[in-house]
Amino acid sequence: VSRPRPLSGFPEWLPAEQIVAQTLTDRLRRTFELHGFAAVQTRAVEPVPVLLGKGETDKEIYLLRRLQGDAEPGDPPVGEDGRLGLHFDLTVPLARYVLENAGRLSFPFRRYQIQQVWRGERPQEGRYREFTQADIDVVGDGTLSFHHEVEVALVAAEALASLPIPAIVMRVNNRKVAEGFYLGLGLDDVAGVLRVVDKLDKVGPDVVAAELAVTVGATSTQARQCLQFAGVRSEAGRDPADLVAAVTALGVQHPRLDEGLAELVRVLHAAEEHVPGVLVADLSVARGLDYYTGTVYETHLVGLESLGSICSGGRYDELARDGERVFPGVGISVGVTRLVGGLLNRGLVRAARATPTCVLVAVPAEEQRVGCERLAAALRRRGIPTEVSPTAAKYGKQIRHADRRGIPYVWFPGTGPSPGEAGHEVKDIRSGDQHAADPDTWMPPAEDRAVAVQAVDQHEKE
Amino acid sequence: VSRPRPLSGFPEWLPAEQIVAQTLTDRLRRTFELHGFAAVQTRAVEPVPVLLGKGETDKEIYLLRRLQGDAEPGDPPVGEDGRLGLHFDLTVPLARYVLENAGRLSFPFRRYQIQQVWRGERPQEGRYREFTQADIDVVGDGTLSFHHEVEVALVAAEALASLPIPAIVMRVNNRKVAEGFYLGLGLDDVAGVLRVVDKLDKVGPDVVAAELAVTVGATSTQARQCLQFAGVRSEAGRDPADLVAAVTALGVQHPRLDEGLAELVRVLHAAEEHVPGVLVADLSVARGLDYYTGTVYETHLVGLESLGSICSGGRYDELARDGERVFPGVGISVGVTRLVGGLLNRGLVRAARATPTCVLVAVPAEEQRVGCERLAAALRRRGIPTEVSPTAAKYGKQIRHADRRGIPYVWFPGTGPSPGEAGHEVKDIRSGDQHAADPDTWMPPAEDRAVAVQAVDQHEKE
Repeated sequence: VSRPRPLSGFPEWLPAEQIVAQTLTDRLRRTFELHGFAAVQTRAVEPVPVLLGKGETDKEIYLLRRLQGDAEPGDPPVGEDGRLGLHFDLTVPLARYVLENAGRLSFPFRRYQIQQVWRGERPQEGRYREFTQADIDVVGDGTLSFHHEVEVALVAAEALASLPIPAIVMRVNNRKVAEGFYLGLGLDDVAGVLRVVDKLDKVGPDVVAAELAVTVGATSTQARQCLQFAGVRSEAGRDPADLVAAVTALGVQHPRLDEGLAELVRVLHAAEEHVPGVLVADLSVARGLDYYTGTVYETHLVGLESLGSICSGGRYDELARDGERVFPGVGISVGVTRLVGGLLNRGLVRAARATPTCVLVAVPAEEQRVGCERLAAALRRRGIPTEVSPTAAKYGKQIRHADRRGIPYVWFPGTGPSPGEAGHEVKDIRSGDQHAADPDTWMPPAEDRAVAVQAVDQHEKE
Repeated sequence: VSRPRPLSGFPEWLPAEQIVAQTLTDRLRRTFELHGFAAVQTRAVEPVPVLLGKGETDKEIYLLRRLQGDAEPGDPPVGEDGRLGLHFDLTVPLARYVLENAGRLSFPFRRYQIQQVWRGERPQEGRYREFTQADIDVVGDGTLSFHHEVEVALVAAEALASLPIPAIVMRVNNRKVAEGFYLGLGLDDVAGVLRVVDKLDKVGPDVVAAELAVTVGATSTQARQCLQFAGVRSEAGRDPADLVAAVTALGVQHPRLDEGLAELVRVLHAAEEHVPGVLVADLSVARGLDYYTGTVYETHLVGLESLGSICSGGRYDELARDGERVFPGVGISVGVTRLVGGLLNRGLVRAARATPTCVLVAVPAEEQRVGCERLAAALRRRGIPTEVSPTAAKYGKQIRHADRRGIPYVWFPGTGPSPGEAGHEVKDIRSGDQHAADPDTWMPPAEDRAVAVQAVDQHEKE
């Protein structure tokens, strides 16, 4: 095998970068568990009919086949179409998992899932062929209370706020608000209007107005009102009632609009208390309004909007169905690879070192390695990540080995290297400080024990 | 989608089982990091030539192809063979990763990797098509000291010893011992002897003796000595010198044999100090002796030997090569799915509940949900996993909801549900104990805060 090269769309990280990815993922997981979401891991593959679901066939799915020949005669057929493909998100597997295990789950079912997904798409910034998502969902059996739509937004915002990343803005909208407004305005082809308004950012208001006339037969007044409606947004810290007033001022009335606005206001109120400054209502958010049925979410990093949404989701009234039994769900998905990759590529986050090791025990001579191992074991027993120098080279060389990898402390064994002997010293190789230390009591500060992962601001970078 | 069924060979777990898997994986990771192994995650796919490596084509590899058409014209060709396949272990990707990033890694490179792998094999107990492995390896640049062969065995044994699983026995052997013995005995086709002796467990000593005569031309004396040699093993707690004496008594001499025995003795000595009672030398272990070049390891659960080895590995003098630059490595791999699946299938390990939630905050009335959320947030801030009851049903029903999921505590809000109000009470629903509690200071015992995962012994099961 000659020197291999990276595969486009399949990102991999060096150890210091992987520590960043893992630290961020661990913190997301920690918040999800604090809120009582249970981990689920689904297999990477699903039968193709499950992946294609409601008949969409434009998905770039990777199919599997064996290198050695075809299916074996003993293989059970899977549905009509025995082929397997890699999952392209974590929602389709969740729906299948819920149907498969409904009798053994307790509802509302709260699960988080942090896994890789695969899409055979053309790679570009923020778009990968293999990437990690961190999803939370609440799934009901028959019904699912609205308050879970508030909850998942808050949990995701709290989880993201715990990370060393730039500030975020989560924008929320509600399918009922849009649907109610367009119906109240006399435009019955709601899906048609949504499709056109969704292009607003790309094509601008004049083209949208013209298209609304052509595709849904909107009058120029109706088109103008659609555009005004899509321009309504709340501001963090402002009274959510202002949002209602702004929509009401457009003079359109419909019970569904009222219902949707009341729901949006509840989300804004809760967010202002629990994650102040993060959440805004934005009626131009059209993401997924064609398939979501209630609140929808999308989230951008302030100053890195071009990266796209790093956390999106919404409510489905019918996540899954088994005959008459319907499972509504609401969920939100953090794009871990997009987030971490975007920050690493820009040098905006950094791990303090490329290894968990906090202490390197220097080896005075190869014959003393056994005692050095004993010493390392004593430090590890108290939770200090420790390794023993791979060689008994001159101390200067052993220190350089630690320095290259960012290990903050080098331990010099005493008269004999075992813990009980006298004369142990520890050196902080960043400051050069060296002092006597007892292997049974010495403790580095917490910020050195685990690898610190910190945001790097632009100023600091330059 | 009608009710889906499991896919054979692609195991999935219910939430309580997943907590077991995750707890065990977290503990393995914790030990690996304490010993200074850095996390690496490689992409799931490799180019087919990388997977086929040294020309073995009998691997049951899953290849990928896109559902929509073939490769795009802009896709860069990958080697001679542009096809991608799912990795079937974590060693092949490690070797590729080391070659690709050699200039940016520091050696000896210590990495752990916990990931899924895929093999298109016929599923059976302990054999899956998708499973998780937890590997540690130390990779040198040019050279790699022997002491790392001691190290990885000890780290793996320590990691496994930290788990709520049955006792383990790790059996070690050394390629040099076998090679030196057979050469010293006058049997030059070492690989041939190894292949025959490897069948000892399956076909018995008489067939092995007969085959040795046929395939490597062994005399009956040589065959008998091979069988005696394969019967040598150390016992935990016995002096490792006994092992050397037992081999020496067979009267075969070769410098490679002496070198290998000295290495085995060093492994045994270190194990007796750091993980007493776990490690034995067993000269019948032939696993991978054809491709490993030094120490080899395999590990069984006591009483569950039929599950196969749950932790295996060894030393390769040439893990990877780039022209003249050679990277030797030594590593060991825990079969997480085999281990966890084997224990779960037998009911030998159990999580105390199916959710991380420690406290369910009861909701007296839907209008008080906001205050209940505030209360839950106060508990979470102090690290207590908490959720708010999904409904404001009668308290009895809310308690049953907690009970069904194994949540140990239900919190009854006081006169007003917010933290500052008086009259809060918490009930341990296992004992029925209920007492006044302050949301800003009350703390459940640590064994309730995180979900306890415990071994279940056969006695307890019945």
